[in-house]
Formats: sequence, C-alpha cells, structure tokens
Amino acid sequence: MKEYIKKIDGGVTAAKGFKAAAHAAGIKYKGRDDMALIFSDAPCVTAGTFTTNNVKAAPVIWDMQVIRNGAGCRAVVVNSGIANAATGKAGMEICEKTAEAMSSLYGGSRDGVLVASTGVIGMQIDAGRITAGCGELYKKLSDSREAGEAAARAIMTTDTHKKESAVELTLSGGSTVRIGAMTKGSGMIHPNMCTMLGFVTTDADIDRTLLQKALTSVVDDTFNMISVDGDTSTNDTYVVLANSLAGNPRIETEEEDYERFREALFVVSEDLAKQMAGDGEGATSLFECRVCGARSVTDAKQLSKSVIGSSLCKAAIFGHDSNFGRFLCALGYSGVSFDPEQVDIWYESAAGKMHIVHNGMGTGYDEEEATRLLSEDKITVLVDMHMGEAEATAWGCDLSYDYVKINADYRS
Amino acid sequence: MKEYIKKIDGGVTAAKGFKAAAHAAGIKYKGRDDMALIFSDAPCVTAGTFTTNNVKAAPVIWDMQVIRNGAGCRAVVVNSGIANAATGKAGMEICEKTAEAMSSLYGGSRDGVLVASTGVIGMQIDAGRITAGCGELYKKLSDSREAGEAAARAIMTTDTHKKESAVELTLSGGSTVRIGAMTKGSGMIHPNMCTMLGFVTTDADIDRTLLQKALTSVVDDTFNMISVDGDTSTNDTYVVLANSLAGNPRIETEEEDYERFREALFVVSEDLAKQMAGDGEGATSLFECRVCGARSVTDAKQLSKSVIGSSLCKAAIFGHDSNFGRFLCALGYSGVSFDPEQVDIWYESAAGKMHIVHNGMGTGYDEEEATRLLSEDKITVLVDMHMGEAEATAWGCDLSYDYVKINADYRS
Repeated sequence: MKEYIKKIDGGVTAAKGFKAAAHAAGIKYKGRDDMALIFSDAPCVTAGTFTTNNVKAAPVIWDMQVIRNGAGCRAVVVNSGIANAATGKAGMEICEKTAEAMSSLYGGSRDGVLVASTGVIGMQIDAGRITAGCGELYKKLSDSREAGEAAARAIMTTDTHKKESAVELTLSGGSTVRIGAMTKGSGMIHPNMCTMLGFVTTDADIDRTLLQKALTSVVDDTFNMISVDGDTSTNDTYVVLANSLAGNPRIETEEEDYERFREALFVVSEDLAKQMAGDGEGATSLFECRVCGARSVTDAKQLSKSVIGSSLCKAAIFGHDSNFGRFLCALGYSGVSFDPEQVDIWYESAAGKMHIVHNGMGTGYDEEEATRLLSEDKITVLVDMHMGEAEATAWGCDLSYDYVKINADYRS
Repeated sequence: MKEYIKKIDGGVTAAKGFKAAAHAAGIKYKGRDDMALIFSDAPCVTAGTFTTNNVKAAPVIWDMQVIRNGAGCRAVVVNSGIANAATGKAGMEICEKTAEAMSSLYGGSRDGVLVASTGVIGMQIDAGRITAGCGELYKKLSDSREAGEAAARAIMTTDTHKKESAVELTLSGGSTVRIGAMTKGSGMIHPNMCTMLGFVTTDADIDRTLLQKALTSVVDDTFNMISVDGDTSTNDTYVVLANSLAGNPRIETEEEDYERFREALFVVSEDLAKQMAGDGEGATSLFECRVCGARSVTDAKQLSKSVIGSSLCKAAIFGHDSNFGRFLCALGYSGVSFDPEQVDIWYESAAGKMHIVHNGMGTGYDEEEATRLLSEDKITVLVDMHMGEAEATAWGCDLSYDYVKINADYRS
C-alpha cells in the first residue's frame, strides 16, 4: 500500500461530518436492529453503481434517479429483512414515503435521500413501520465509532459478521481526507457492475463526475470480481457520498490527487469485497484465484472468475481435495482460448506454496501436503497462462453443506 | 408423440446389427465393470458433437478426427474412472493404442474406432489394462438386451442408475428403423454444444451429412438445455452410428423421412437428457423450467436455462420452499431484456398446478399448498413473459447436501 494511504479503524462515521444510527423497526426480523441511517452534516455529491439485473428493486430505481438528479444528498436509509423487489407501484411508494419522512425531519427535499433494502424478494414493506423507524433513527444519530458499527450490523441478513473498512489519505498538498464504508452481502452474490449493499462516506471535496469515474473503475476490479453463488441480485447498490468537509483543495482534474483518491477508494473496496467473499453463505474459507500471464486483463478476469465461480472447484476446496482437473476444466470453459499444455498452477496458503500443475499436467506433488495447504481459511490458486503479461484476481468461497441449508429454507 | 414413433424397451443393442459388452478392467474402480464396447456388424456412417471446453480430453480430440475422416466406423470403446484429460501426449497415445488393439481384433483400421473416457481429470490410464480390456470385451460381445444394459452400467461414474432409451420409427414407405442409445452423466454437467458421454446406434440408412445435421439440431434442444452444476466438462461426447442394416430407402434429402428420423432422434435424446438432469449429483428432484411468451426461441432458452442453473432456485426446490423472488431474480440476470411487471409464474407437479406470480408480483397463494406441489420428484416452473410466441424448456435438478458431499470428496 502506498505511503499516503493509511488503514484506520472505522466505518461510515470515520469521515468528518458523517453520523449513523441503527434501530429495531420490526420490518421482518424480531429482536434485532433492521434499519440503519447514514447522515451528513453538509450536502454531498454522490456516485453509485447498481445491479445489472433486469428485475431491479424499487430502491435501486429510486437511487438511480436521485444520483442522476444530483441534488445535494444528506441521508441514506437502509432496511434489512425485505428487499422491496417485485413489489410494483406499492414498492415505489414505500421509497417515496421513506424519503419524505426522512427529509421532513431535517427540512430538506426528498430528492436528497437515498434508500436501500435487502432481504426476501416479493414481500411488501409496511409503510408505518418504516416511516416510524425514520424518526427513531434520526433521534439516535451519532458520529461515534459505535454508531457506525451498529449501522453495519443492522444491514446484515445472512452475513455472519459486519463488514467495515476505512482509510486516511494524504493528498499531494498535505491535506488529509478520510474514506469509510460498510457493506453487507453473503448470498445472491455475483456482482455485475456492482454488488450487494455498500455505502461509502468521505469528507473529500471532489467533482461529481470524477467521483463517479473513480467508483466505476474501482468496482470493476473489486466487487465485480467476487462471486458466492453466481446469482446477481435485484438490489445491488454501491454508493459514495462526499461532503467536502475535509476542506482539501477540490479534486477537479484527473491528476495526482484524483489517482490518490482512486487508490484509497480501491483499498477500502477491495478490503470489503474480500470480507464479503470470505463470509459467503456457509463458507468455511476465502477462495482466491490469481491469474497471471494472460493476453489481456479481460481474459485474466474471465479466467479467474470462472474458477472461483465453479461449483465443483468450490466443493473441492470445501473438501480440502486437490482435484486440480477441476481448475483446468473451469479455465477451459471460461470462454478464453488458450493452450492447455502451457498452463501452470500453484496452491498458496498460510501453510505454504506448492507447484501442482506444470504444462497442463500434474507435477506428481505430495497429496497429503496439498490437503494441508487447502485446509487453511484462505486459499489462493495461482495460475500462469504463459501467454502474456496481464493479470487479475477474483474472490469467492467454498461450497459447503451450510450453503444448501441456509438457502433451502432461508425464509423461515 | 407422432404415430410413426414408438418407444421400445432397449438401448444400444436395439437396432439391427449392433452388439455390446461390458468388462471389469480395473482401470480405477474395483469390483465393477468399467469398460464398455459397442460394435456394429457393418461399417457405419457417424456424426458427433463434442465439448466446447477449451481443455479437451484426448478421446475427444481422437473422435473429432475419426468423425472428420469419415472412415466406416465399427466400434466404440468406453472406459469410466479416468477421464484421460490433462494427460498430454501420453493421453493421445492411449487413444491410439486402444483403437489399434480393438481394430486388430476384427481386422479393421484404427480410424474406425471411437474411444471415450469419463472420470477423474489429470490421471493417466494404464495402457496394458485398457488393451487387455479390449480383448475381453470383444469376446463377450452380444446383441442381447442384457448386453446393452451391462454396457450402460459400465460407463456410469457418480450416476445412480443407467440411462437408456430406444424407439422404433416407421418411415413414409413403410420400412421400420430403430434408434437405441445410452448416456452417462451426473456431475460436471452444463452442456454447451453437447454433453457428457452419449452413444446412439441406428440401423437406418442415412446420408452422413444429414445424420450430422439431425444430431446437431436435436442436441441444441435437448442436451444443451440441461445443467446440473454449470460446469462444462472436458469430455462431453454425443455420437451416432448408423449401419444401414434396416435396409430402408436411403435418407438422402431433407424431406419427410429426414424429418421423421430427426423427430425419433429427438425423442430418444430428450428422454436421456431428462434422465440425466433428474439424476444430477445429489438430486432429489427433476427441476424443469418452461418459458413461453418470449420474443424469440433464443430468449426463451436463455431465460429457462438461467432459472434451472441458479444455485438459489435449486436450493429452494430442495427445501420445497416457494421463494418465487429467486425465479424472478434469475430471469432478471439472464441477459434477456423484459418488463418484470408482465411476468406470470405457475408451479406444476403431480400434485397440481398453481398460479404464483401475476404481473411480476405474488398472487397471495397458499404457502402450504405450494410446498405440497414442490415436494414432488418432478417440478415444473412455468413462466409466461407475455412478449411474444416463442417458448423453450430447460432441465436441471435441485441442489442438496449430497451434491456437496459427493463433490467435496469425489476422488477417494
């Protein structure tokens, strides 16, 4: 990591002027927080990427409008439990009512409120509960570390732990800005353009177009490179709010400070993407595939995603079984053309590194040793295609009994 | 089914002049048949479709040459246990030696022998065992029903039962021909151009180009419409051998008799494709998705395959859980553009038929009743897109604990 980027403990309240809150509104879950609010003391410029699923949840459609309009945004209201997808006109009305309830609390316009939902598709959210929840959230707002943590927990569904990340960035002129974020996501994770719910707050002063540009480029190499189950959700949302309260010289051109900001956003996003992949439903390990020696980055991405997306590769990782033919097979059906007799594969984990395939054939490695490597909680499969200089990394998780268990009866 | 097509009990020995045999050659499995031979009394014209995986097993490369050369083919030698994939030059030599051993037994050319393998990728086959196996198989050849059954069992890997199908077809002039077939396949099933191992024998007299044309068109609507786990194998092979011993007027033009033959081949192939999907690794049910009202057949295929390929839809079927949002979600990320608020969905099984989604939203159906429908061993999800007239059907299976169990430790 570059010397001007420093990881710090924190989440959405790490940057100046951002507050958060969590509340148990009884949307669907009992006895736990299921609503979260992010609030900025000053109007923000915003950028976002959203699901490419043709079936878009109502909050996704709402947020796309809010971001397109570009009115100074102040608040993000999130609920877990119900996705508000496949809910027709009634679903859009819930978004409007939520934004109205929230904006009336601080005396702003409803166009300045982003909303997001995650949970079961096809159920309606109770309007009374969600608007009452807005009032409670607003009362509880705090810029404390704990408020950020509580918000990160409130947006979880099948996640087993909260996901936060934050950095402090020093710009070329010496001013510092902060970027903090939280995400949720564990199943229905196969981002395409963006993934799951993710919220980034920053006190940087940055041009709106550049903010969107940085976000889009970062998402391509982070959230778009993870997969839990190949299912692209109806609700994927990743948004950034920048309130300019750091007072840095405004980032208005694609020069040094833009690059630094982009890198810092990358660090936060990659951190969260890996946290999400490793916490995939039922996962016992983070399964990383790094492909090098590809002809192009596009090829390298396609190859690495094919490996981490393969049910058979994922099941082999779960079984700590060095069935390397499955990795070759998944590379083979990725759609990228290559010479199978040039491929080399290594395993790497905390237990060591091992050469498994040379020129497309097994190296005659020690099976027990391979099993030992594959028994760690983070496994990397390194692939060298020997065709060029391009590389890419994708992240997934193993496929366990618990994935089936969680998803055979998610609604009850 | 048309009146000129009649299902009959049988497999690869159903058509005139075809014999079969099975043998325990000890390739990898212990105490079970693991080699099969199909043999024709007369030279055959052949057609085939093969995996689109860039990593092609040696036997696939061998068979593509044999079929391209078009030398009168007499024999197909199959082994289970080892896939002979990712085996380099040594793997190609195994194919040559097998074909040589077999052809020398009946005094033919090695170009007339097709070979096929299925099992673990990356292991070498012992040449001595497989050539010795050829001798034993040739001695045991028989045209009995039992010989066909034994061959169908010998080629199984994780399959729980053999897969055979046969029909008798009456051509327009009154002559009858037979088509018999066997397939294997349970995991690594996501055909693209073709799937798994499948062997069709027919005594029809038919032009080689028309035979290939019929095969290709049939495979597109049958084997290319099934998926167990999204993994396209390195060994997919589906070949037809036609020995002309029925003595029918040769099928040389794309007229009435060609159409009848194509239909009969479709009946056999669809039957086997559904048997394979329903016997997917760990499967407890056959999961069918029929999409109608699509703008084009291509769209209908893409939509139906997206649903049966979704891990979340498959897990819901396993749990008998009417989580209809997952079906909408999978339609949405299929890549086909449509209006979600026009979509209707029904469940259909032996227990009845039920309207679940109307205009993109839940109908308020009875949940217990839905669970009862989803508890049958064949479930159909019917989708009407209300956009056009095109339709297609895809077949898969549910995702169970046993899929994970089988694949976490397949090699041991």
